[in-house]
Amino acid sequence: MEEGRQINVGVLGATGTVGQRFVTLLSAHPWFVIHKLGASPRSAGKTYKEAVNWKQATAMPAGVKGMVVQECKPEHFADCAIVFSGLDADAAGDIETAFRAAELAVFSNAKNYRRDPNVPLIVPFVNPGHLAIIPQQQALHSPPLQKGFIVTNANCSTTGIVIPLAALERAFGPLELLLVTTMQAISGAGYPGVSSLDILDNIVPHIGGEEEKIEWETLKILGGLTETEGEPGRKSFDMHARHPLRVSAACNRVPVIDGHTECVSVRFARRPPPSPQQVREALAAFTPDAKALGCPSAPRYTITVHEEPDRPQPRLDRGYQDGAGVSVGRVRQCPVLDIKFVVLSNNVSIGAATSSIINAELAVLKGVVPA
Amino acid sequence: MEEGRQINVGVLGATGTVGQRFVTLLSAHPWFVIHKLGASPRSAGKTYKEAVNWKQATAMPAGVKGMVVQECKPEHFADCAIVFSGLDADAAGDIETAFRAAELAVFSNAKNYRRDPNVPLIVPFVNPGHLAIIPQQQALHSPPLQKGFIVTNANCSTTGIVIPLAALERAFGPLELLLVTTMQAISGAGYPGVSSLDILDNIVPHIGGEEEKIEWETLKILGGLTETEGEPGRKSFDMHARHPLRVSAACNRVPVIDGHTECVSVRFARRPPPSPQQVREALAAFTPDAKALGCPSAPRYTITVHEEPDRPQPRLDRGYQDGAGVSVGRVRQCPVLDIKFVVLSNNVSIGAATSSIINAELAVLKGVVPA
Amino acid sequence: MEEGRQINVGVLGATGTVGQRFVTLLSAHPWFVIHKLGASPRSAGKTYKEAVNWKQATAMPAGVKGMVVQECKPEHFADCAIVFSGLDADAAGDIETAFRAAELAVFSNAKNYRRDPNVPLIVPFVNPGHLAIIPQQQALHSPPLQKGFIVTNANCSTTGIVIPLAALERAFGPLELLLVTTMQAISGAGYPGVSSLDILDNIVPHIGGEEEKIEWETLKILGGLTETEGEPGRKSFDMHARHPLRVSAACNRVPVIDGHTECVSVRFARRPPPSPQQVREALAAFTPDAKALGCPSAPRYTITVHEEPDRPQPRLDRGYQDGAGVSVGRVRQCPVLDIKFVVLSNNVSIGAATSSIINAELAVLKGVVPA
Amino acid sequence: MEEGRQINVGVLGATGTVGQRFVTLLSAHPWFVIHKLGASPRSAGKTYKEAVNWKQATAMPAGVKGMVVQECKPEHFADCAIVFSGLDADAAGDIETAFRAAELAVFSNAKNYRRDPNVPLIVPFVNPGHLAIIPQQQALHSPPLQKGFIVTNANCSTTGIVIPLAALERAFGPLELLLVTTMQAISGAGYPGVSSLDILDNIVPHIGGEEEKIEWETLKILGGLTETEGEPGRKSFDMHARHPLRVSAACNRVPVIDGHTECVSVRFARRPPPSPQQVREALAAFTPDAKALGCPSAPRYTITVHEEPDRPQPRLDRGYQDGAGVSVGRVRQCPVLDIKFVVLSNNVSIGAATSSIINAELAVLKGVVPA
Repeated sequence: MEEGRQINVGVLGATGTVGQRFVTLLSAHPWFVIHKLGASPRSAGKTYKEAVNWKQATAMPAGVKGMVVQECKPEHFADCAIVFSGLDADAAGDIETAFRAAELAVFSNAKNYRRDPNVPLIVPFVNPGHLAIIPQQQALHSPPLQKGFIVTNANCSTTGIVIPLAALERAFGPLELLLVTTMQAISGAGYPGVSSLDILDNIVPHIGGEEEKIEWETLKILGGLTETEGEPGRKSFDMHARHPLRVSAACNRVPVIDGHTECVSVRFARRPPPSPQQVREALAAFTPDAKALGCPSAPRYTITVHEEPDRPQPRLDRGYQDGAGVSVGRVRQCPVLDIKFVVLSNNVSIGAATSSIINAELAVLKGVVPA
Repeated sequence: MEEGRQINVGVLGATGTVGQRFVTLLSAHPWFVIHKLGASPRSAGKTYKEAVNWKQATAMPAGVKGMVVQECKPEHFADCAIVFSGLDADAAGDIETAFRAAELAVFSNAKNYRRDPNVPLIVPFVNPGHLAIIPQQQALHSPPLQKGFIVTNANCSTTGIVIPLAALERAFGPLELLLVTTMQAISGAGYPGVSSLDILDNIVPHIGGEEEKIEWETLKILGGLTETEGEPGRKSFDMHARHPLRVSAACNRVPVIDGHTECVSVRFARRPPPSPQQVREALAAFTPDAKALGCPSAPRYTITVHEEPDRPQPRLDRGYQDGAGVSVGRVRQCPVLDIKFVVLSNNVSIGAATSSIINAELAVLKGVVPA
Repeated sequence: MEEGRQINVGVLGATGTVGQRFVTLLSAHPWFVIHKLGASPRSAGKTYKEAVNWKQATAMPAGVKGMVVQECKPEHFADCAIVFSGLDADAAGDIETAFRAAELAVFSNAKNYRRDPNVPLIVPFVNPGHLAIIPQQQALHSPPLQKGFIVTNANCSTTGIVIPLAALERAFGPLELLLVTTMQAISGAGYPGVSSLDILDNIVPHIGGEEEKIEWETLKILGGLTETEGEPGRKSFDMHARHPLRVSAACNRVPVIDGHTECVSVRFARRPPPSPQQVREALAAFTPDAKALGCPSAPRYTITVHEEPDRPQPRLDRGYQDGAGVSVGRVRQCPVLDIKFVVLSNNVSIGAATSSIINAELAVLKGVVPA
Repeated sequence: MEEGRQINVGVLGATGTVGQRFVTLLSAHPWFVIHKLGASPRSAGKTYKEAVNWKQATAMPAGVKGMVVQECKPEHFADCAIVFSGLDADAAGDIETAFRAAELAVFSNAKNYRRDPNVPLIVPFVNPGHLAIIPQQQALHSPPLQKGFIVTNANCSTTGIVIPLAALERAFGPLELLLVTTMQAISGAGYPGVSSLDILDNIVPHIGGEEEKIEWETLKILGGLTETEGEPGRKSFDMHARHPLRVSAACNRVPVIDGHTECVSVRFARRPPPSPQQVREALAAFTPDAKALGCPSAPRYTITVHEEPDRPQPRLDRGYQDGAGVSVGRVRQCPVLDIKFVVLSNNVSIGAATSSIINAELAVLKGVVPA
């Protein structure tokens, strides 16, 4: 960690579920200093302690209790080098645009701009290279921007799987087919989110829009950032087009508090495909740039490969490394595709706020945000 | 229902989880009369009320409370036309063999003889034709048997999916690929079964032997019963060999009391494959022989097709028709195979005791068991 | 049951949690015929099937699916002899008043008028005699009413305990002290009600206003209806005043779907107090007027006394008699007061809609509502 | 913390639920060094990693993975200054006696010797003075012992309440009446412990022997250690005899993983009793000797008093200070006794291993165990 690096940051939607997680993580961050907290007009003017309905299992950090919550207007955040957005989708659209226009660097967990052709959708261990679209995002803005931009991170259920999938593509070349069935924690729906009457002793085999997100985001994240054909100098996301990847997702809500479990089957382009043991080794050996560059929030083990037949399990494994890595287990042959395995990712950590924070760390280390 | 039909039956393993379900269902049965209850030596000699730790959410039927529990020895069950076995696998092997050798008709929920080449593995809405192996089972016994035989029903997670799959094969011809991810209820593991510490706020992505059972049993059930090549007059199960079917299962235990939810993707041999709407219609129209023949425990609707996007759900749908049918929902295209959907089946009803009972009803109606 | 008795009834708040329960129970009722369904203006004009988000574990009754939902205005319900109200408290106040003023007999599950000095608060197995206040309620109305009135039933957690307490007072004379700790099901909070994030793997040791309700309602229900001192001919509820009863309640929300469990300790005025065995016998022998008069929804066993040390349990016992009775277990001496025991009542049945319906049955049988 | 203090300790029952907790806590302890791990003969000879079915939500400490598990025989633990016992009750009796006879200092979480008149039953924030019975325990042993002894800690549900009760007695004098209803976590029953079929969507209103433990242990812990009448020099536990305290407990198992919630009502001898506000202040101000003496595992806040109306809650508050303190909320008047409130204690921390460890720290600081 760099001694003395001190970067003022703001949190938008600070009283919400994702916002509380940002506040918790940032309060213990070696570089980032919470400078401003933004929330709805109803909360503005109150201290954070008064405004928030704190639902974390850890105590509220002492440093934020007395901070006065601001409305989410750029002028209140002018002295923040970075703004993290935990806003709900219905608010995020306009607010994040306004912050970008005011030359603020926005790292957003909201879904609104993930499909924007000039906004990178970054899972920090997978495609930090997509930060290279930012100059184009700024140049195409009207008026062109110097410092303002938006970076999004992926949907929680996408994030969990693309990390091991990226490790596999790096080791064995492109994937061709991906079939995933998710069992997603209730915290993924925010608070109050899922009614207890809907989920106690129950499974809900549907999460609105989730399957589409996995099927689309996976292609943007695992795909390249290339010169646009016929438009020299113009970059675009190729959606894994050179090696078309077909993705099928089935999403379920389960009575688990935190931690998404996903059963994955894949087929590789390469014949013969790698063996389960080769897959295990490639996953365990995967070292992303975020680790190599020294992002302070990157975990020691990006992918933990379990040998026990009944792991990973959300209750036992979601807290490992504070939820910043992912766990993979049960790597075995798939009689239909090539290889199948189970992924566990902590949806409130690497699946949400932790990803935004590491994305910001990457942006600092790469000079996209001035330190 | 046939007026006046009265058939004495026994229940083995009557104090266990499956046995309690047999007792509950048979107490209200129009034909079958519980005549004998068998359990371990430790329970023998006690009244059923004393011997059992009743765990059903319905009251213990009055008629069985005072019945004296017997040891599971054929001589105590000699006057039973049918014996239902809810025995655990570690006891079922020897006891069921002894009962068959004593010329008793055994309908078993245990796994021990499912792979026996002369024992039919019957899901009552799918392959009652496999009862035709029974004469061969009797003839090959030493000494040959007149009345004794064993019929097994399938594993609970297999049962749920083969019913809609059989409906699809009947309507659209053979399947080629099947990928299924299960979310299985705790009651599938018996009592005490799954420790609460293992499953509250958790998923266990592994159930010992379960994936192998689905992958193997599906082929036996959906496959034909054919003349053995080179052995005229000798029948064998063809394991779906004429149209090889590859099956891949991923099994998970979830914190749900009753009801297995399974996410299924299939590929048909036929090109082009049926549309989701054609699949929905074929499923809803499926009418098995058990219904046509008048099995009293066959439900009015074998497959209920849900149109709502978030159904079926175990808590809301497992009790429909007392769990004797299955529910299918979310029929839609699969970007990797052809069609995907969700199946819910009640693992303690059609997934266990109800299947055995309908199998016995079929055997009575087909004259395999004298009425 | 009286052959041929057919009474048209309406249900207010028919799409809500309590309303769905009313609809389920009334669809199978021997006297009452669902004639009108009322809900919010947003639902009015739709069929019930379109308007409702059906959350019952039993199928929607066929007869109501196509009924058109009305706004909750008296003119739409003019031909109903009885109106059941499952309205939320924020709507119930004005609507129930309007219905009463329009000469309709309202049996309400809402809390709004429970404390009204002229409205009876009736637990059907406890204080049907309080129906005698109705003429006064009508006479004091401006203008005086001929047929319109409001009858309320009690809060679900109150209902469960006052039934055994009434049995004890009938057998052993007045109680002096009552200490109760509740463990209340999530369905008591309606839908969406309790967030799953608040209750999975958790207890919430507080339910707003619940302790006050138990402490106050118990006195109104168990107390007498007497001549008001100094006002001949004017009746009032004496709040158990002749034998003051002190009540202390501690209320908790627990992760149980249906069924309130309550740990009760009592002290009797009478010295020496009854023994646990005498208490058990008195509870089991309790036969309320609703049973003697022949209310069709009164259960065969009003209070089921369990001898097993670990019963009653909500999951196993709440469905007994369709939840119309209550279960008591673990009757034993209390080292601090006299006797302690556990009560289980089904909060969505006898704790809500079932009570309203039996109250209406009582009103019919007593001639308060013309049959 | 004392620099350089290094005390070798052993753990008996190291592979069990409580043992795993001992191992987790001791691996991070500033004084105690895990030197030996004991378990059943079946585990002996294996490495800890091989022998244990690790069920903690934190990773297994690196230092113990390769340690070879011993049989629980004193000769293997001869060089341990302290032995912690997480043995099950069926094994603890003989083993702990043998260890004491071999001059080892045993701090036990088992129930076997809690009622022994010469064994102290110590809740570390309440009655460390009871360590003074140890010389008598040693002297009465045959042959008399120099160093060996047994110290027990209390049952988890007792521990939670005696801490605030001790604070109240210190501030306001003796209590007279105590009525407590518990809602206890499944982890209190060990592993596999409670079957998931018994507790999902359910409450079990009975825990074998638990109510008796609370009613008896509370008196031993809160009572004095006095000269035995008529036997000068002989000490005995007075069971709160000078101010008789009547205790009534009702115990329930609830679907919560960790954390016992207890609803308490008390009556003080002193008239008038303290007000709720005085009680709150006394609880918050309570500073036990363990804190004053500098026990490293004593939490900063022994009793956290919550002002929010809906706290404490097990999921949100059990992890505070790693579960070493207790939380109290909802302090208010009790209409039957004087004051009522809710206590939350972490049954696997202060309710089990943490208590044993602080007891050992106290013994070191008081010179009962040589440092």
